[in-house]
Amino acid sequence: MPQPGLDILALGNAIVDVLSHTDERFLVDHALHKGTMALIDEARAESLYAAMGPAVIVSGGSAANTAVGAAALGARTGFVGKVRDDELGRLFSHDLNATGVAFATAPATSGPATARCFVLVTPDGERTMNTYLGACQDLNPSDIDEATVAAARIVYLEGYLWDPPAAKEAFRKAVGIAHGAGNRVALSLSDPFCVDRYRAEFRELVRDGSVDILFANIHELKSLYETADEDTALAALRQERLLGVVTRSSDGALVVSREGTEEVAAFPVDKVVDTTGAGDLFAAGFLAGLSRGLDARSCARLGGLAAAEVIGHLGARPQANLAELAVREGVLPG
Amino acid sequence: MPQPGLDILALGNAIVDVLSHTDERFLVDHALHKGTMALIDEARAESLYAAMGPAVIVSGGSAANTAVGAAALGARTGFVGKVRDDELGRLFSHDLNATGVAFATAPATSGPATARCFVLVTPDGERTMNTYLGACQDLNPSDIDEATVAAARIVYLEGYLWDPPAAKEAFRKAVGIAHGAGNRVALSLSDPFCVDRYRAEFRELVRDGSVDILFANIHELKSLYETADEDTALAALRQERLLGVVTRSSDGALVVSREGTEEVAAFPVDKVVDTTGAGDLFAAGFLAGLSRGLDARSCARLGGLAAAEVIGHLGARPQANLAELAVREGVLPG
Repeated sequence: MPQPGLDILALGNAIVDVLSHTDERFLVDHALHKGTMALIDEARAESLYAAMGPAVIVSGGSAANTAVGAAALGARTGFVGKVRDDELGRLFSHDLNATGVAFATAPATSGPATARCFVLVTPDGERTMNTYLGACQDLNPSDIDEATVAAARIVYLEGYLWDPPAAKEAFRKAVGIAHGAGNRVALSLSDPFCVDRYRAEFRELVRDGSVDILFANIHELKSLYETADEDTALAALRQERLLGVVTRSSDGALVVSREGTEEVAAFPVDKVVDTTGAGDLFAAGFLAGLSRGLDARSCARLGGLAAAEVIGHLGARPQANLAELAVREGVLPG
Repeated sequence: MPQPGLDILALGNAIVDVLSHTDERFLVDHALHKGTMALIDEARAESLYAAMGPAVIVSGGSAANTAVGAAALGARTGFVGKVRDDELGRLFSHDLNATGVAFATAPATSGPATARCFVLVTPDGERTMNTYLGACQDLNPSDIDEATVAAARIVYLEGYLWDPPAAKEAFRKAVGIAHGAGNRVALSLSDPFCVDRYRAEFRELVRDGSVDILFANIHELKSLYETADEDTALAALRQERLLGVVTRSSDGALVVSREGTEEVAAFPVDKVVDTTGAGDLFAAGFLAGLSRGLDARSCARLGGLAAAEVIGHLGARPQANLAELAVREGVLPG
């Protein structure tokens, strides 16, 4: 069923997050690399879950979080991703539909269960993620509806899609359709380790014109250009023919293009409870801003506001009414 | 399998909460009575879920919340309640085990799914609950292990157990064993509407010596004694041969006995996000205090601290380390 006229169509892994507070010791004991995402198999998923503390379950998935945030800020948004027809899959679908995100990808009726990500949150608010991809591995090019993609002004893709093999083809198909229809493609680099796994392909996507807008945090950007130096990475980014949006946690964001670099301060946050989804919600605000025709600075401010809300509580989906919050904070007109 | 030597054995409905922020309008549109708990059937559960916003899933159940809070504060705690052997049932069990609550009730292998409670949280932080009892209806006297109950210093029961028919018999069996072994029985009145449904029986339990410690909020107490006047209700409570613990939200708690009434101030709270579990966690702190041999005032302060933590976030299970928090706030010695 085509979904015509979307502002943003997001493609990503359809994941339910299982979040738990933990201490640094737990990360060490289970050989987890703090602040990153690791892929795990079913056996590891079972043993990690058995070892971890009481959890909160919230729908997640990087691009899905972005879709929800953008929809909450008024953008007409859709999502493409694969769940199974199980309890967690229904939960994931409910949460998208309930936020007004159009989601029509057929669930898998056999094979692995809906994907889950075990998120360990340390006292500093940093999150360490362990993803069992499950049904996400079934996403394939036949899930890409040509009419829907062609009618979406921005197609947004997460780098994590490079992990399940067939999803990459779906990604490439969507890029082809979007550009064929004269629309823009945005990519999030997702995670420095993910960049490490697929650096050559990501570099090519960025170079060959597949990507018009690139979202990255500074760690991912340094990984992309294989440098430990921030300025070197930013200089390399400035040479690409795209709009670069670089987040740097509490140091705010940079909007980078051949024309120059714009610095936008982060939103003040009372207490960082859980950074899960910070980057996703930044992208959500930025893209929602673009769909409203705002300038880059205003888009980045809207991104900062959405990111600030999501790190104030457990889970990567907004709990406050983002649109009301944006008006109250003077980021959007009332 | 008996669990000897528990400080607290809690009996209650085993429920997973599905929590969502909503507005006042939603309550009106769906004929929900704000601040209370309503029982719903499966069809109503489906339609409410479809209508409600994106949700956060957290294990719940009144007495189970209390068990988790008490365990987090160092009490040796067990729980008796019925889930099904499904995804949500495993989640519920995991969260108890992960907090160190002994939970050995056999899950149902057929019949209705694990119970869920749809919790609508309005902007004032008040919660309105809609419970589909599911597998809880299978709890029965054979689930009560005599040795475990006899060895528990306090058996804690939720009034909600009067809703599933066979659970009431399990409740009575546990009371008989506890008193036969010379241990104490505590009861929470749960909800003013629940009191309304079973007033005569609850009055009898309170009068006939079945209950040694009674937890109630002021609304439940007024419902129990069928009076709109707080002082009348408290005077009636003072006549019972038990220890009464009455919570009054931000006005703090009263510890009431024939010897007199002690007033204990509420803990300061920055922002009330979601009151779900406030009463449960108050009882948790109070009972954990009793198990440490603290006096009534100190028990009530520990209860207030645990309640204050849980209303600062979505869901009725503590997210902070309650034991550390109690030391930091000077409520427990370091």
